[in-house]
Amino acid sequence: MRERSYAIIGAGAVGGFYGGRLQRAGLDVHFLLHSDYEHVCAHGLFIESKDGDFALPSVQVYRDAQAMPRCDVVAVTLKATQNHILPDILPHVLKDDGVVVLMQNGLGVEDDVARIVGPLRVMAGLCFLCSNKVGPGRIQHLDYGTVCFADYAADGAPRGVTERMRQIAADFQRAGITVELDEDLLTARWKKLVWNIPFNGLSVVLNATTTEMMADPDARALAEALMREVVADAAACGRQIGKEFVQKMLAYTAKMIPYRTSMKIDYDERRPMEVEAIYGNPLRAAKRAGADSPRLEALYRQLKFMDARNAGLARA
Amino acid sequence: MRERSYAIIGAGAVGGFYGGRLQRAGLDVHFLLHSDYEHVCAHGLFIESKDGDFALPSVQVYRDAQAMPRCDVVAVTLKATQNHILPDILPHVLKDDGVVVLMQNGLGVEDDVARIVGPLRVMAGLCFLCSNKVGPGRIQHLDYGTVCFADYAADGAPRGVTERMRQIAADFQRAGITVELDEDLLTARWKKLVWNIPFNGLSVVLNATTTEMMADPDARALAEALMREVVADAAACGRQIGKEFVQKMLAYTAKMIPYRTSMKIDYDERRPMEVEAIYGNPLRAAKRAGADSPRLEALYRQLKFMDARNAGLARA
Repeated sequence: MRERSYAIIGAGAVGGFYGGRLQRAGLDVHFLLHSDYEHVCAHGLFIESKDGDFALPSVQVYRDAQAMPRCDVVAVTLKATQNHILPDILPHVLKDDGVVVLMQNGLGVEDDVARIVGPLRVMAGLCFLCSNKVGPGRIQHLDYGTVCFADYAADGAPRGVTERMRQIAADFQRAGITVELDEDLLTARWKKLVWNIPFNGLSVVLNATTTEMMADPDARALAEALMREVVADAAACGRQIGKEFVQKMLAYTAKMIPYRTSMKIDYDERRPMEVEAIYGNPLRAAKRAGADSPRLEALYRQLKFMDARNAGLARA
Repeated sequence: MRERSYAIIGAGAVGGFYGGRLQRAGLDVHFLLHSDYEHVCAHGLFIESKDGDFALPSVQVYRDAQAMPRCDVVAVTLKATQNHILPDILPHVLKDDGVVVLMQNGLGVEDDVARIVGPLRVMAGLCFLCSNKVGPGRIQHLDYGTVCFADYAADGAPRGVTERMRQIAADFQRAGITVELDEDLLTARWKKLVWNIPFNGLSVVLNATTTEMMADPDARALAEALMREVVADAAACGRQIGKEFVQKMLAYTAKMIPYRTSMKIDYDERRPMEVEAIYGNPLRAAKRAGADSPRLEALYRQLKFMDARNAGLARA
């Protein structure tokens, strides 16, 4: 059987970790980089990981999508705030029978990419990963790492477990990564939002780690109320998430190492936050479905305010 | 006619300003002070004011309530977070036929004081004032200054305009202060909350002035949504506030000078915030009346988290 080739669009906390693991497993991996290009060209990637550190002194790295070979799998590991650059990238790196795997947070990102490459060449890989980029070409993997794959349909209907999901999952498993396969992309995305919506946003607004929030009865109660609201929004959109899922996610968070969320890191570094992907799109989807989401909307507006001010400070 | 004597409990941004104005107008005013006692004993009060600066080199100042004369009017100008000290103060300074005027924010503070001095000796003086204490005995009056008086009944029923309201209002007018008389204390308190609930809390959570919030479409929209929720809560509690009041308050805020709210100042100075008086009590009153207040509750929980952390930092 022919091996699949991989393009990793962005090699930060997510792309550097998963791309590095795939390369270490012997797969043919090509990285598109921007700011770290020179450094990674010269020194490769280094992944500090709770599963064992490893170095990749030599990686196939590009700064221009047009110089890359077309690949079977194009893993988009950029922040969703960078997706406006994808129309200039994806047509150059995706094989005709290839697939784009969106390894991003939020809702609705597949719809945007389907407009670029067509609805038959998109799927999702949801990452349950605590990792940070701590320097050029240097990734720190703190905890977790599971990827949940789900396939895409333009009408939002569940696609079930497709053959390409199984194949890509097999590659990730070969790289030592735990995978899950979800029959329904929207259920998978809403379930991830049940965690992301409270903890990403509140970590920024409250300037707090997950541990600090879980230890405080008010922050925890607010996180739980937000989770229940997201579950209700998902139900309005036709996706049932059992009520026990909220308790499961709270218990999971209580056991996490003290964690500065990715949105908090973006905020602290004065980078744009994924406010529209994680908050705006779910809020609008819920509204279209007739659901009222006052807590989600309040947090969305707080984050939009903080993001706009941060953009002003970043420019200044 | 005998002139009324005044005790001012706390001479900070509120008490220093109003007490100073009453003394300047020739009234008999006695100040109970804590941290600034020595300084005010030696140097008096100085009020920088947009209406004209003035100094009171000699003021009648006490650090012990038992040393004070009993007064006709005891104006409580402490933060509501300090009200636990009132049982040790009020019985010593209030004449049998005197009245305590609560010049504080929030809801339910009169009920607490009625338990100390009885329900017939309490009323409210709601302050629409931008002022800060900028040093020992030194008050900076930035804008506004109106006081709205309302009388109290233990059952919450409107008391109408009482004779003592008129008398005290006349004293304040003599001191050059604009006054209003409200026939219903709870309506007056809920109307003030329509402003305080959005702008005090959001100024802390968003680290922003009123001007910054009003200039941002999301912060403004969230403030307006909170205002509408407070109007609905008031209605559930039997107090009708016209919908045009929200627009009026937004227009009023848009015209304000850039203002760091009193809650934001407390937070920045690592003092306790009036979270229960301004948020917890209205939230519980609304819940008892069957109203759902998700945005108010979310903001309450955010502030409780921030207040608890601040208390930890203040102790550290």
